[in-house]
Amino acid sequence: MFMARVKGNVITSQKVEKMQGRKMLIVEPVRVSPDNSEIVGTGRSFIAVDSLGAGPDELVVITQGSSSRMTSGTSDAPVDCVVIGIIDSVTVLGKKVYQDQD
Amino acid sequence: MFMARVKGNVITSQKVEKMQGRKMLIVEPVRVSPDNSEIVGTGRSFIAVDSLGAGPDELVVITQGSSSRMTSGTSDAPVDCVVIGIIDSVTVLGKKVYQDQD
Amino acid sequence: MFMARVKGNVITSQKVEKMQGRKMLIVEPVRVSPDNSEIVGTGRSFIAVDSLGAGPDELVVITQGSSSRMTSGTSDAPVDCVVIGIIDSVTVLGKKVYQDQD
Amino acid sequence: MFMARVKGNVITSQKVEKMQGRKMLIVEPVRVSPDNSEIVGTGRSFIAVDSLGAGPDELVVITQGSSSRMTSGTSDAPVDCVVIGIIDSVTVLGKKVYQDQD
Amino acid sequence: MFMARVKGNVITSQKVEKMQGRKMLIVEPVRVSPDNSEIVGTGRSFIAVDSLGAGPDELVVITQGSSSRMTSGTSDAPVDCVVIGIIDSVTVLGKKVYQDQD
Repeated sequence: MFMARVKGNVITSQKVEKMQGRKMLIVEPVRVSPDNSEIVGTGRSFIAVDSLGAGPDELVVITQGSSSRMTSGTSDAPVDCVVIGIIDSVTVLGKKVYQDQD
Repeated sequence: MFMARVKGNVITSQKVEKMQGRKMLIVEPVRVSPDNSEIVGTGRSFIAVDSLGAGPDELVVITQGSSSRMTSGTSDAPVDCVVIGIIDSVTVLGKKVYQDQD
Repeated sequence: MFMARVKGNVITSQKVEKMQGRKMLIVEPVRVSPDNSEIVGTGRSFIAVDSLGAGPDELVVITQGSSSRMTSGTSDAPVDCVVIGIIDSVTVLGKKVYQDQD
Repeated sequence: MFMARVKGNVITSQKVEKMQGRKMLIVEPVRVSPDNSEIVGTGRSFIAVDSLGAGPDELVVITQGSSSRMTSGTSDAPVDCVVIGIIDSVTVLGKKVYQDQD
Repeated sequence: MFMARVKGNVITSQKVEKMQGRKMLIVEPVRVSPDNSEIVGTGRSFIAVDSLGAGPDELVVITQGSSSRMTSGTSDAPVDCVVIGIIDSVTVLGKKVYQDQD
């Protein structure tokens, strides 16, 4: 899995049948900075299915590959990237480097 | 999943049996620009199977890996990359950065 | 899937049982050049199983991961990369950028 | 699989059901230095499920993808990255380049 | 699959149950040099399970992902990287660029 920041979403009217009604978020993978003091972006973009209601700028945990079909809402769907958790806080080497504002 | 732009297609007369009759598109993964204002290319090339009729220069959503066999047309095929939707619009941090011209 | 150029092959006398008799090609993934005018190498090297008889310098389509076990000759084999087609031609934005010499 | 160093952990209160009660570590993949004398970081960050009790700064072995569901605690979970071992020592070209302090 | 050079090994006393008794090698993926004349390292490090007895500095073929569970010794194990062959020789564009010394 990896940490990612929610950046936006995509709308698709033409889609394969099993994708009807699924919310597709744009997420940017993030990582721990070299000095271990903060969470920084990687510049990459993925599309992830979300059933948890993650909002813009929130940090989430993403699962990829066949394991992304192991949630109650995604079994048998052509989905390879799913939000499995919304991050409250991140601790690196004993120091809290991220705390959700909510 | 990831966003990609349709660039072209490949023709193969010699192919394994289960690939007969499948349209294979060349797609370039794209991402959100660092300033979050537009969609930009990555320079990479993938081959994706398409059943939705995506045309040159259109943005699509691509699923990879075993999940690409979860569409009605691709089960049991040696396919690891499939178009699952044609993108109408992309919104980043509340601002629309892409709108399909059709 | 991705496009690749056949570069050579490897010979292994000691191998796991299910790999007996399989031809293993060295392939270099290729991509569309930034100006969309030609197919260029990436410098990377993969080993792919081939049952189609692809020869040196030919362009092929490669499937990776579990989907590479979906051809008639590779089911249940410890194979994660297989040639699924030999490319006749590649068209990018309406222009033919590659044509097999055969 | 790959070697990684434990950097910290993430807390998620909102998560998909099957992730309840799982400890999620932040790990940084590491590699052998070019001169084969030490283990160095790569700067990348992954989230891995851990059932072995790995602590900060320890080196672990990570399994990715569907194989990460092959441990007793992760079958059927939306998990694509798991700690399968805590490293005692690493030997490169006959020389010990890492020894756990415990 | 990909070619890799055996660099060393890791010892783990604490491990998940299904990893008991498995030898874990450190391998460095290699590739064909740009001028097609030799095999060169990539600087990356993977951990692979080996049942063939590959030794330091030998070139091997590695299978990744779910396909690495398709050997007689790895089915149902949390293993995503396995040695499937020890390379005797590598031929690139008709020229032998590697020959095992044994």
